[in-house]
Amino acid sequence: MGNYFHVTTFGESHGVALGGVIEGCPAGLKIDRQFIADELARRATGKTSSESQRRESDEVEFLSGLLDGVTLGTPIAFMVRNTDAHSEDYEALKDTFRPSHADYTYQTKYGIRDWRGGGRASARTMLPYVVAGAIAKQILKQQGIEIHASVKSIGGQTEPLKMEDVLKQCREEGDSVGGIVHGSIIGLPAGWGDPLDDKFQACLAKAMFTIPAVKGFEYGDGFAMANMKGSDANDQMLIDDDSSLQVKFLTNHSGGIQGGITNGEEVFFNVAFKPIPTIGRGDRHDVCALPRAVVIVEAMAALTAVSFVP
Amino acid sequence: MGNYFHVTTFGESHGVALGGVIEGCPAGLKIDRQFIADELARRATGKTSSESQRRESDEVEFLSGLLDGVTLGTPIAFMVRNTDAHSEDYEALKDTFRPSHADYTYQTKYGIRDWRGGGRASARTMLPYVVAGAIAKQILKQQGIEIHASVKSIGGQTEPLKMEDVLKQCREEGDSVGGIVHGSIIGLPAGWGDPLDDKFQACLAKAMFTIPAVKGFEYGDGFAMANMKGSDANDQMLIDDDSSLQVKFLTNHSGGIQGGITNGEEVFFNVAFKPIPTIGRGDRHDVCALPRAVVIVEAMAALTAVSFVP
Amino acid sequence: MGNYFHVTTFGESHGVALGGVIEGCPAGLKIDRQFIADELARRATGKTSSESQRRESDEVEFLSGLLDGVTLGTPIAFMVRNTDAHSEDYEALKDTFRPSHADYTYQTKYGIRDWRGGGRASARTMLPYVVAGAIAKQILKQQGIEIHASVKSIGGQTEPLKMEDVLKQCREEGDSVGGIVHGSIIGLPAGWGDPLDDKFQACLAKAMFTIPAVKGFEYGDGFAMANMKGSDANDQMLIDDDSSLQVKFLTNHSGGIQGGITNGEEVFFNVAFKPIPTIGRGDRHDVCALPRAVVIVEAMAALTAVSFVP
Amino acid sequence: MGNYFHVTTFGESHGVALGGVIEGCPAGLKIDRQFIADELARRATGKTSSESQRRESDEVEFLSGLLDGVTLGTPIAFMVRNTDAHSEDYEALKDTFRPSHADYTYQTKYGIRDWRGGGRASARTMLPYVVAGAIAKQILKQQGIEIHASVKSIGGQTEPLKMEDVLKQCREEGDSVGGIVHGSIIGLPAGWGDPLDDKFQACLAKAMFTIPAVKGFEYGDGFAMANMKGSDANDQMLIDDDSSLQVKFLTNHSGGIQGGITNGEEVFFNVAFKPIPTIGRGDRHDVCALPRAVVIVEAMAALTAVSFVP
Repeated sequence: MGNYFHVTTFGESHGVALGGVIEGCPAGLKIDRQFIADELARRATGKTSSESQRRESDEVEFLSGLLDGVTLGTPIAFMVRNTDAHSEDYEALKDTFRPSHADYTYQTKYGIRDWRGGGRASARTMLPYVVAGAIAKQILKQQGIEIHASVKSIGGQTEPLKMEDVLKQCREEGDSVGGIVHGSIIGLPAGWGDPLDDKFQACLAKAMFTIPAVKGFEYGDGFAMANMKGSDANDQMLIDDDSSLQVKFLTNHSGGIQGGITNGEEVFFNVAFKPIPTIGRGDRHDVCALPRAVVIVEAMAALTAVSFVP
Repeated sequence: MGNYFHVTTFGESHGVALGGVIEGCPAGLKIDRQFIADELARRATGKTSSESQRRESDEVEFLSGLLDGVTLGTPIAFMVRNTDAHSEDYEALKDTFRPSHADYTYQTKYGIRDWRGGGRASARTMLPYVVAGAIAKQILKQQGIEIHASVKSIGGQTEPLKMEDVLKQCREEGDSVGGIVHGSIIGLPAGWGDPLDDKFQACLAKAMFTIPAVKGFEYGDGFAMANMKGSDANDQMLIDDDSSLQVKFLTNHSGGIQGGITNGEEVFFNVAFKPIPTIGRGDRHDVCALPRAVVIVEAMAALTAVSFVP
Repeated sequence: MGNYFHVTTFGESHGVALGGVIEGCPAGLKIDRQFIADELARRATGKTSSESQRRESDEVEFLSGLLDGVTLGTPIAFMVRNTDAHSEDYEALKDTFRPSHADYTYQTKYGIRDWRGGGRASARTMLPYVVAGAIAKQILKQQGIEIHASVKSIGGQTEPLKMEDVLKQCREEGDSVGGIVHGSIIGLPAGWGDPLDDKFQACLAKAMFTIPAVKGFEYGDGFAMANMKGSDANDQMLIDDDSSLQVKFLTNHSGGIQGGITNGEEVFFNVAFKPIPTIGRGDRHDVCALPRAVVIVEAMAALTAVSFVP
Repeated sequence: MGNYFHVTTFGESHGVALGGVIEGCPAGLKIDRQFIADELARRATGKTSSESQRRESDEVEFLSGLLDGVTLGTPIAFMVRNTDAHSEDYEALKDTFRPSHADYTYQTKYGIRDWRGGGRASARTMLPYVVAGAIAKQILKQQGIEIHASVKSIGGQTEPLKMEDVLKQCREEGDSVGGIVHGSIIGLPAGWGDPLDDKFQACLAKAMFTIPAVKGFEYGDGFAMANMKGSDANDQMLIDDDSSLQVKFLTNHSGGIQGGITNGEEVFFNVAFKPIPTIGRGDRHDVCALPRAVVIVEAMAALTAVSFVP
């Protein structure tokens, strides 16, 4: 198994295509195209393929790195063409800066911007990460590692029915709302991560803050630990005398990482999303990023974990 | 002005020395050694040099990259020797894994570890970042950028007197306690940060999670935005008609960053620290990382910001 | 002007497509598509577009990073689809290792290989570098920097007519032949390159050895300097008293670089190519890499130079 | 065995110290200090320790990454203090640019330079690479890989006695002379190197051109292959039918690498050095870089090879 899985992504929301190049993917992996399609459907609809009736229109074309669907070890390039772009809908945005969007910052940095639907700042730029993340999940699964995320709260509500109420209300009011996604990585062996330059949690945090609209990240007991005492926060372990590396943790306040290195327990974390900044535009847009963000959080966690495969 | 300031650090808590190499520091900068000494005193004592009577024992020796105290543009190496190490105090730790320390994860990863005082997992490994951060602050200051951090809460208490009570109680009980550091970067121009691979907030988050004991990071209104509606969260701006890049933001829920790129407003953030895991050992150790962590948070913020200098 | 122009390439000789992603290309550059097409024609035919009647079939499609043909500052992805691949011609190669090809080394490294026409080891993988190099040339030209290469010798012959004789003879004998390409970068300002990690000549050498079949590289007076004395090899300079940085070099044995950093003189170099390993197969293949390699050498030089743009 | 051995070096010729930080050195390696001292003696005197009576004055101090002389897997920092610097000897150079030295290019790039003995452009900056290379050799030796270099020619002479004559003559005339070092890596397994971004030979070339005074590099039959025909240049192999990856090469014109990846044969190469630019200054300086450069060539080859350890 290779040890390096580097993803370079490209694409604007309403450009020709979005895609990526994966370097360092191990050779000999049979790519599961149906799984990739399912993950893209989750990104597009916020639902699993069994829940969703809608056909996913984001079709992935692989350009290199495969022979008969099996990875060659060489760079894997893929793309999804943008269709049905309706750039003309955005014509009015050409000369204005939308509040809490990246229009102004891009214009300042580059002196030019793709004003059509957010361009490179659009949440649609997460699509290539979802594709690469699906491949990373395949690799991780072979090693017994699974990644799951779910909506923890929306607008402060944690019960499904109440979350639905919040969304319905926002839809009626033409407003939007934020929320929290909970993520979990199970089956990680002890010993992944680097002491200082690339602590597991630091790379995970960086990956999560790459997602548009993310404003906070915590792992283990997170911010709650700021209010705790050491006697309540420490994770005791039982050490098997016969083999000092066989330990059993009695609690997991730490969230599966110590000193930047995994300890074999579950790595769990929360990611806070701000409300979508586009509001008051009828029901053509989402009122909340959360349902569609779940698979993105999973993808970014998978890409982080796979980068540490020894 | 150069555009790259990369720091490689080295050193174990009780090894020969800790230090670092700074590559890409601009040439022609007169290093302010007194300022570096002051920052190291803050790290050692948790107090500014005017508050602290204690002499700082961490003396920096510069090994390269300077001529008559002025940077040459070549790698700047520096080190601080470890003195008064008392390795023998840790002899008992040689064959055990302390709860919620990194003893077990290092042993698993490397098959060997420096058991003396935490080795490379010790908070003392932040010392080289404080030195490099002090130089980064000098560079930033020349550009009108200032960085400040402060203790926001300890054990859930936000008032100084109550924080003192919590610390006193912990000292009496042989316990430890967590807290939150608030950080702020003022004077950043608009346009720093990269769209996806190196968003300003993503790099800032990664830097903060490099600090031992950090469990959470949020910027702008952070986790609170997960409970907000878009109509309350958006930052409206006034746009000067005569020059479209002259804008004035009316609020700053975003925390000075949009789409990964600074917008010219204050970048502010919170960093959550768990309680120090070493407890029940009398008053030889700190009961709370917070006071000494403030200057470390500032250093990591400075190193993040300086890496984006155009 | 940005300071970083990083190219990630992908593609196998007979896969779906070859292409690349350019990160860090400055915003606001109007891409000259005709120039790119001309450069690709030089790669395909070994002739300039005015010399060649043949239509170039390698058509570039840009996938991202452009708005109305102008760079956005975001990643520029492009691809050229492989057509007329005739994989079946290579069916016989599936189970054999061709002498002095990379079949065996790829199989050993990856346990799998794309046996169709050399796969990722084919000279056709240079195509994306030619595209990226054409864009780099545009950027460099704006700064007054020009790059030229030419065939210096084939089979030891340096006169055009004799080179033609060698090629004709090889064609008749079903053999192949090596040669030397001379390259030159004119207009580079003094001060580009890094002291040790990224000396200008070291990066140039690495770029040249990335080209298939390259066996040697020298710059300035190169290997001939191994036989010279210092009194003959040193480049004297005249220094203008009024301004010490105004110097005039009387000779240029050094080839425009000292201590890894350009000195403002012409950077010139030779690249040695071995004979193409495919022989005895009639006239369907080239007998010499040289004519088509000239534009590749230029492209790699351009990509090296552009990476140092301050 | 780890897979990454990254060296950051620092130091000016007449600064406080030279040294380096090795990241990614595998844990559990017992450092052979005597071997490091021997290698440094070869660098200082151009002779092996058995040939040389002179005491080596370059003493290495390890600052981190070791416990009882065994590597911890954490960054290994080391330094050698500069003694007996005689900066005053160089006082006259403060305001002049020496021909074919890097004085002018450094001054142009940085606006400042360490004028004492060449500063960061001095050949003495190779010292940290020799230390790191000695550790790399230890790691490679454990895998059956050995690296040897030797002086192939001086001033065009290849016989020892004639080389001595050339050196003697240069000493008398106050001149200097160039030469060629031949290098060889034996025992490399097939499969090391990357297809395009990091071809084995490209990384080797980059490493060699990092050495001051190097003007040319060739591997395998090198520049001579530019004059050869394919029928003479190809390396035939015998393939064992029972196991297709068991091949035997009948010749090695390729120099042990195909498509950027090692094939299990000897990797051999030549490195051309120009004459030392300092001339006419009596016998205090070397007249030829070659004897002392041999161990530097070996070190750079070792650092290249070790970076590919899987």
